[in-house]
Amino acid sequence: MFILHYAPGACSLASHIALEDAGATYKLARVDFAARAQTAPNYLAINPKARVPALVTPLGVLTETPAILAFIAHSFPQARLAPIYESFAFAQVQAFNSYLCSTLHVAHAHRMRGYRWVDDASAIEAMRKKVPQTVGACFDLVERAMFRGPWVMGDDYTIADAYLFTVAQWLEADGVDPAGLPRVADHRRRMLERPAVQKALADESADQAAV
Amino acid sequence: MFILHYAPGACSLASHIALEDAGATYKLARVDFAARAQTAPNYLAINPKARVPALVTPLGVLTETPAILAFIAHSFPQARLAPIYESFAFAQVQAFNSYLCSTLHVAHAHRMRGYRWVDDASAIEAMRKKVPQTVGACFDLVERAMFRGPWVMGDDYTIADAYLFTVAQWLEADGVDPAGLPRVADHRRRMLERPAVQKALADESADQAAV
Repeated sequence: MFILHYAPGACSLASHIALEDAGATYKLARVDFAARAQTAPNYLAINPKARVPALVTPLGVLTETPAILAFIAHSFPQARLAPIYESFAFAQVQAFNSYLCSTLHVAHAHRMRGYRWVDDASAIEAMRKKVPQTVGACFDLVERAMFRGPWVMGDDYTIADAYLFTVAQWLEADGVDPAGLPRVADHRRRMLERPAVQKALADESADQAAV
Repeated sequence: MFILHYAPGACSLASHIALEDAGATYKLARVDFAARAQTAPNYLAINPKARVPALVTPLGVLTETPAILAFIAHSFPQARLAPIYESFAFAQVQAFNSYLCSTLHVAHAHRMRGYRWVDDASAIEAMRKKVPQTVGACFDLVERAMFRGPWVMGDDYTIADAYLFTVAQWLEADGVDPAGLPRVADHRRRMLERPAVQKALADESADQAAV
């Protein structure tokens, strides 16, 4: 049994989808960002980084999306969520996910979380202004150099698809027009047809409505 | 045979140390940041992200430090650079490395590479000003919540040690006093005693001097 600490629509959605893809038994635990629950002592005891996702497993707590996704792929080999027996192919999945985590998500974070890196209000506004350009450049690179098709890594669906879908959900809010990203936009459409994705989105939405 | 595209003192040092640790056969290819060689067409053909590291392998090019480190650990199992046969323990190594990549290194990058996220000169200066605090906070978390000792992951040296050492090399330049981080500082001292680390540092230094 796993417990996924998540916030609706946050990057934790990738781990949520992967748990569904894997057929894992898990519970959701919503972290209420509006109430700053991520900084409450009981959550910091789970994840001192004050972020989501955090996956509570029988062996301990795991954080960081690329690590959680890889762990899910390894823990449910029958779900075939990554080429876990081929070290180079698996490393390529990790490289893709690492790029989303350390470059694309970081570019996105400058829209709403600029206070992480500056104190000055005008600098925060300057950051926000550049987000369409920086996030757009990241997606351009995905579109023309990284995405293989029909899935991120080629013929086989992997954990990288759950992650790309998750960050592609932010495109419009980040001021990036999906029309300029036909492969990413088509991927997003096809992801929305998958029952695991529909279930994860519905669960996060229902959970949010219940609070 | 591998080729590591690197810049002296950049985060590529972690992959460089891991290649030494693994006893791998490899060549170094310096990317001259001062000459903007990372944006030259011949380098973009290797790594369209215009960053280091990039590891050229017989199977293709691999980028992103956490992915390269994991690949080296998997490719040289006899070097025992990660618990590659235990999925949770391995995921914890990946979680540590992912944190360095997506949070700590990103905080550091706001000192010299603020132009990635803003155009405005005063905003770039505002970013720079906060770096001692943000990088310091990342290292505080490593020091008190993540570092197990004597090595990052506990009793066994792993790829996470090569990566922590690499980013800890930037402490003083980022305005963080290592005296406040006794475990990180002691780790850095012990890393400097390792022949693989000495060799990697000497090679990068010699290569730089030769250009």
